[in-house]
This record gives sequence, structure tokens and C-alpha cells, in this order.
Amino acid sequence: MTSAPTHAKGLEGVIAGETEICKVEQSALIYRGYEIADLAANASFEEVAHLLLVGHKPSADELKHFQAELVAERKLPEPVLNFLKTSGDLVNHHSAVPMDILRTAVSILGHLDQDCQDNSPEANLKKSKRLLAKIPTIIGHMQNSIDRRDFVEPDANLSHSANLLYMMTGEQPSEEAVKVMDVSLVLYAEHDYNASTFTSRVIAGTLSDLHGAVTGAIAALKGPLHGGANEAAMDMLAEIRNDIGHENDDAKIDAWMQTAFANKRKLMGFGHRVYKNDDHRAPILHALGRKAAEARGPEFVKLFELGETVQNIMETQKNIFPNVDFPCGMTYFTMGIPVPQYTPIFVASRITGWCAHIMEQHANNRLIRPRVAYTGPDLRNWND
Amino acid sequence: MTSAPTHAKGLEGVIAGETEICKVEQSALIYRGYEIADLAANASFEEVAHLLLVGHKPSADELKHFQAELVAERKLPEPVLNFLKTSGDLVNHHSAVPMDILRTAVSILGHLDQDCQDNSPEANLKKSKRLLAKIPTIIGHMQNSIDRRDFVEPDANLSHSANLLYMMTGEQPSEEAVKVMDVSLVLYAEHDYNASTFTSRVIAGTLSDLHGAVTGAIAALKGPLHGGANEAAMDMLAEIRNDIGHENDDAKIDAWMQTAFANKRKLMGFGHRVYKNDDHRAPILHALGRKAAEARGPEFVKLFELGETVQNIMETQKNIFPNVDFPCGMTYFTMGIPVPQYTPIFVASRITGWCAHIMEQHANNRLIRPRVAYTGPDLRNWND
Repeated sequence: MTSAPTHAKGLEGVIAGETEICKVEQSALIYRGYEIADLAANASFEEVAHLLLVGHKPSADELKHFQAELVAERKLPEPVLNFLKTSGDLVNHHSAVPMDILRTAVSILGHLDQDCQDNSPEANLKKSKRLLAKIPTIIGHMQNSIDRRDFVEPDANLSHSANLLYMMTGEQPSEEAVKVMDVSLVLYAEHDYNASTFTSRVIAGTLSDLHGAVTGAIAALKGPLHGGANEAAMDMLAEIRNDIGHENDDAKIDAWMQTAFANKRKLMGFGHRVYKNDDHRAPILHALGRKAAEARGPEFVKLFELGETVQNIMETQKNIFPNVDFPCGMTYFTMGIPVPQYTPIFVASRITGWCAHIMEQHANNRLIRPRVAYTGPDLRNWND
Repeated sequence: MTSAPTHAKGLEGVIAGETEICKVEQSALIYRGYEIADLAANASFEEVAHLLLVGHKPSADELKHFQAELVAERKLPEPVLNFLKTSGDLVNHHSAVPMDILRTAVSILGHLDQDCQDNSPEANLKKSKRLLAKIPTIIGHMQNSIDRRDFVEPDANLSHSANLLYMMTGEQPSEEAVKVMDVSLVLYAEHDYNASTFTSRVIAGTLSDLHGAVTGAIAALKGPLHGGANEAAMDMLAEIRNDIGHENDDAKIDAWMQTAFANKRKLMGFGHRVYKNDDHRAPILHALGRKAAEARGPEFVKLFELGETVQNIMETQKNIFPNVDFPCGMTYFTMGIPVPQYTPIFVASRITGWCAHIMEQHANNRLIRPRVAYTGPDLRNWND
């Protein structure tokens, strides 16, 4: 057994490349020069998507053209529709969760995209827009299949966010719900070398194709230490509710948390590899989500109050802050979205960041291939 | 525009973790203590697979049991069979290549594996063996579909290597062909933190599942700077043959190479991120492949002679050595394997290394999340 040389576990703090797309600092989160609070207050998701994919804030004409391109690309090819028809069975009676279905659907889309094997900037941009347009349709149809309902066709009059909500349920969403969804997508769009984006760049760095890189990124985002945290955070709140009953009894909540601490349980939606204090995105989404809860009724306000008590205990007793996934769980719950779709909705946003990074990787490529410290057995002979 | 802090591009030379599975050095390639030439000479692929997945060289009884488990798991569930029936159309008439089909097939397999969402060591080992057993069936059925032939069922009397060759063609392979295939799988099984294995660990590090991690690894292996190099190397030799004609005229080969050098063309199957001189695996496979070519006839010997001339020019004029993918291309061509299946066959082997690394990552997990240097625009306001 050899002892390993010192290294940063999980590449913590190690700089793995350069990017013009995003800056994540303790003090700020910036997409191509624009700070996240500015974008959340002033830009639509389509504008942010254009900023990330094309590289600049769109003019009014560019935005109109971009929106029209996305609307025109929402429909899915037959083999993906056929797969999605089976998705309800795969989720309800087999082992799949929606993130798995989304991974396969994107993988099949690649087979049918005429530009699949072309890594040029032009082809990559076309493929990125197609995926951006089609992912809400995949999510919507999948939820229809899970709910044993006919597929709801995309509505060309609706924005990316509104159409996503509409296709999942068949009901026209309220203006308020669309606003909350849109801001959540703006917040989720990009976050430099997070694990899924880094996955997409490692894949793209072999000069593999964009659909393959996105497929791998979806697989990475699923994990509860990454995108899956928004589902896990809501599952935890539901578990607390189930354990302590309907009312928010502070003593009971505190007792639940003390047990979790004693069991060294990892509490999802808290802490962040980069942000040592607060995540800038969390209070923005929390405020919006709470407003939606207040509009929706006392049951939903109670959920936020429970979350706020949990958050307060984490901050004061553990000095650990919520990340964006914590308010996201409560917010999407308030909007009536099924929990297993929270991370797929994250994909409907982060697809923009992933594709921007894949294009950046292909445009100035270098294979990403680190070394590893060997700690296994010493040399021996097979026939000994 | 900010200037980026110094960092190792592509994580070259950066230690990203620890492993007990493999040691890659200039002087040696070692799987769990056993040197690659020792394994190639003395161990079967199933023995190496057991070594990598279970962690030790199997006893005779363990090997018998392991082989029986693999044979029992070779069949595919109905939805994967249905997808593979469409694969010939997707490859022949749409944009897919076999590596893409394999990625989707593994992704669908996850939906049907009852242990899909269980990351325990026991469940991960079961899933690893199932994937190891099923991947040759996926490759075989896919090739049958591409060739418009009925699926060839797995033959329980055949080894992993023999069955793989049998299912692709329906013909019982010669003992010599099985031996060459088996050694190539031993050589390809594991190589520490190569790009696809690193991809699988980044995905697994979010606590995502094994099938997702393997799906991403397949996407990464496809790239011509990684596993796809065995196809690209053969494509290059075919291109030289096409350009210079049937005879190996040294002056013409040299002229072809000088043009490639002048055009700064990247020649596939040469050079390696880690090995600065020779790749230990290359001469082992070259010798075996050449023997197979000599048995097969003068046309195949001529291909090896062409490859040897190219290799000699690269070594003497550029000081760049072939990696294992270079002789692999010529060897698989000699065996009559269709070029686009060379990288899927690599998967039929490397699945063992990937799964061993995914299990190691899950057993002692830390999220893999590096930082990146921002080189984009300075702070600006959206509404300016």
C-alpha cells in the first residue's frame, strides 16, 4: 500500500480551465458581465438564454427571432414520442425517475439530429437551440404519460416558462406562476464549473458530440449533491412535516434537527462547495416563492415558515446557509409541480449553461485528463 | 477582460484523487498490483474483470461462478431489444453511430434494472456484472440490425470474447481470433483517470447512479481524442491507402505524412497525455495483430507494413509514439470487424474499469467540483 501524495480532494479550489461565460465569487454571481440580481429583476429567461448561448444581450429584433426559432423547434420526432409514451410505465412500474427518462430522451434526440456529428460552432449553436426548445416538451409529455393523460401539445403563444408549465398540466398558468418559474430558470441557468457542466466539458474535451455531453451532464445533475438537491430538500421538509405533524411547533422542529445532527445526516439544500456563506440566488427565489405561497393560501405559507425555522437552526447552530435548491423545493411545491420534476426543470434552464460551455470547450479544446494517486497493492505476479 | 491565473490546461499532471485500481506510470501499467504484460500473457478477460470489479484474482471456483453469472445475464429486456431493432435505421438512414446507440441502450437498461437507484456496494456490483454481460449483446444485436440480419442470440458455451465475436456475425470465431480479442479486452480494461473514467467519477460524485455514470462515460469514450482514436487510426490508414494506391511505396507514404505535418493535421492513434514515450499496451497488441494478419493473408500483412512505416516516420521525425489505439485499428480490421464498432468493443472491456471506479467513488465519496478562471466581460448593467 503506497501512501498518496497531497492533493485537493474533489478538486476543491483547483482551477481547471478558463471561461468567458460565468464568474462565481463569494461576493457575486455574474453571467457574461451581468450580476444575477440584475438579471433576475430585469431579464427574461429567453434573454438570458440568448446571452449565454449567442454571447450577448439580444436586441429587440434578435430576441424576437430567437423566440420564434425556439417556438418552431418545440416538437419532438416520432422515436422520442414513442419512447415518452412508455415513460409512465417506466416510472410507475419500473425503476426510472424523470431525470433518467430525460437522459434517454436527449440521447435519442441526438440520433435524429442531422447535425449530430458536427462540432462546428454553427452546428453546435443550432443543436443547442433545438435542445433548449425541446426539453420542456420532453418534461411535459413525460409528466402526461406518468399521469396517464394524452400529450399536451406546445402552445406557440406561450413563453418558454409558461409553455413548460402549460404542457405539464394542460392548464394555462397564472401570470404570477409564470413569473416565478421564469426567475427560477434565470437563477438556474449557469454556474461555471459545477459538476454537471464540468462533466459536459470533460466529455466535449475528447471531441465527442454535444448531445453526448448533455446526456452525461443530465446524469450528473441528477445526484442529490448537485441538482437533485431541490427534490431532496423538499423530501426532507415533507419528512419533517410527517414526523412532527401539521403545526409548526418550534420545539419539535428543533428536536428533529438535533436528531438529524446526532445521526450525522446530510441535510439537502444546505451548504455549497464554492459559497462559504450565503448563495446569492437563494434569497431572490425565497422572496418570490414566499409571495406565491401567500397568494396560494395558509398551507403553503406554513411550509415556508417550516423551511425558515429549519434554515434558522442551520445558520445559527451550524453556520451553514441554504443554497438555491432549498427555496426552490418549497417554491416548486407551492406551484403544484410534482417533486420528481424539480431537477428536470433545472435541466430546462441549465441546458443553456451546458451548451455554452460545450461550445467554448470545442472552440478552444484541450483534453481534460488528470492524474490519480495510486494507493493499491504493490507489484505482484499473476501466477504466484 | 480579466487575465486568468496560471493553471494546468486540461488538468495535465494535476492529481484529482486516489485509487486502488490502477497505476499508470511511464515505466508500467498496473491493475491492482499486476503488470499489464503479465495479465496479457497469463489472465483471461473474465479473470481481469473479476480482479477489477470484485477486487482480487478469482480462485477457480470464484471464476466458474463469475462466468456463470455473466452468461446468465446476457439477454436484454424487451424495451432495449425494441430500441435495438430500430438501430440499423438510426445508423443507416439517420445521424447515429454505434457509440451513440450503445449510450442510449445502456441508458434504457437503467430504467429496467431493479437496483437502478441503489448506490450500495452490493447493488453496484450486481449492476456492474449485468452491464458487463449485456454490452456484447447490445453490440451484436446492433450490428445485426445494421446488417439487416435477425438478432443472433448469445451462446452460453462461449467466453465473453468469443460470444462478442459470434453475436456480431453469427459465425463461430476461430480460436486465434478469440485469443486476439481477449488480449485486446485485457489491455483496454482499465487506465486510471482517463477522460471517460474521470467522467464516470464526476457523475458518481454527485451521488448519481451507476447507469447514468456509465452513460456519460460512453459519451466521453466516443471522442477521437480518447476511445474513438482506434476508429480514427484505421480511417487514416484507409485514407493513406486510398491516396497512395495499393502498394506500400515508402516515398509516397513519406510524402503523404509530410503533407499531413505541413497541414498540422492531428494523426490519430499517436501520442498520449500520460505516456511521453511508448504505450506499454501498443507493442503487445501489435505483435498479436500482426500474427493474425500473417495467418489471414498478404493483404492484411500489407496493412501492418503500411502502419509500421507510418509509425516509423512518426517516431523518427516527430518523436511521437503510437498508443494502443493504433495497432488496435489494424488488428480489428484484420479480424473483419466493421470500423464503427471498434470503440463499442472498447466499451465491452472498459465497462469493468468504469464500474470499479464508480464503486470506489461511491464508497468514499467527495463531490468533484473544481473552480474556473473567469476571462469574460467586466461588470455591466442589463438596462444600460
